[in-house]
Amino acid sequence: MKIGVFGTGIVGQTLAARLVQLGHEVCMGARNSDNEKAAGFAKTHAPKGTSGTFGDAASFGELLINCTNGAGALEALKAAGDANMAGKVLIDISNPLDFSKGMPPSLLTPSTDSLGEQIQRTFPKTQVVKSLNTVTAKLMVEPASLASANHDMFMAGNDAGAKGKVKELLQSFGWRHIIDVGDITGARGLEMYLPLWVRLYGTFQTAMFNVKVTR
Amino acid sequence: MKIGVFGTGIVGQTLAARLVQLGHEVCMGARNSDNEKAAGFAKTHAPKGTSGTFGDAASFGELLINCTNGAGALEALKAAGDANMAGKVLIDISNPLDFSKGMPPSLLTPSTDSLGEQIQRTFPKTQVVKSLNTVTAKLMVEPASLASANHDMFMAGNDAGAKGKVKELLQSFGWRHIIDVGDITGARGLEMYLPLWVRLYGTFQTAMFNVKVTR
Repeated sequence: MKIGVFGTGIVGQTLAARLVQLGHEVCMGARNSDNEKAAGFAKTHAPKGTSGTFGDAASFGELLINCTNGAGALEALKAAGDANMAGKVLIDISNPLDFSKGMPPSLLTPSTDSLGEQIQRTFPKTQVVKSLNTVTAKLMVEPASLASANHDMFMAGNDAGAKGKVKELLQSFGWRHIIDVGDITGARGLEMYLPLWVRLYGTFQTAMFNVKVTR
Repeated sequence: MKIGVFGTGIVGQTLAARLVQLGHEVCMGARNSDNEKAAGFAKTHAPKGTSGTFGDAASFGELLINCTNGAGALEALKAAGDANMAGKVLIDISNPLDFSKGMPPSLLTPSTDSLGEQIQRTFPKTQVVKSLNTVTAKLMVEPASLASANHDMFMAGNDAGAKGKVKELLQSFGWRHIIDVGDITGARGLEMYLPLWVRLYGTFQTAMFNVKVTR
């Protein structure tokens, strides 16, 4: 599949590399076409990996993945272009964390909203699915790398068909337990979990952990 | 031990009954001394169970437990009295959930604060430990009632000695896995987890679940 990845940080690099490994064609998008980190990905992963602007990645991909920083996500997606994203599924991994005042980060959205919802409202013709934002980059694409592979991924989104596609992709990464928490307002819970995640990261001194819902 | 329980709802009733069962003397405190639900507890659990005002429960207890509704917690504790709570450990179970606009609830505190911290700031002579707020009442006191007993309780507080006492009490309930996430600012993560909890509750149509951190 042709996939557009927005963002050149550790999440974007990890996702894009794994997608190429799985046989997909991936265009990594950045603010500027001469972004060095995006060009680095393309060079390492040619010919299946390419790079360009956010708009290039958006028009290239049949499926889109937002790996940009939460604080700049809406602006990046506006640069990607509403028309380029229309009718496509967008997996939103970004977290609205504000580190500007140091640790612990606060959230950029109030508890009556979420970044996932803001993105869905801003791009109503795109099917936004919030997922993968609750684990570190390596675990997103290799959930089996934890000693116990028995842990959960969450997702939220308005469109059942879009969530079905995202579920298939997650399964191709190795996810066996995926909990659909309903429509995109579920992104609130997924994003508000992050302060606990950050705290556990500090407690364990490693990001290699996740949660399993037990019943 | 003599324990003061603030609140007469399902959490207060469940905690107080379990504490009496474990051999403790429990005074359930309410706004008014003639509160019917508190009196009901006392009648059912006499002579170890008694009831009174918030102030009565606070002066009675060597250990205190806040089971009041998050929206009224600070007011209830002020009624309990700073002097009555001074030098004592207070387990804060309350969640700052605002259901006034229906589901899903929003949080009454911004992401730069928490109810646990507000209580600690308001009562600096009391050792506040945030815990138990992340599970339903029955699981708080009977964690083994889940099919898988392998799940986690979190706690946060400034005083190591106070957390040691709380840990002992949690263990007496049956908790085997207790994660100390550090000082009272960790209450933010524990409280901001609730929107995800509420969402999972809606997904599973049962409150009988918890999370296990896997590594």
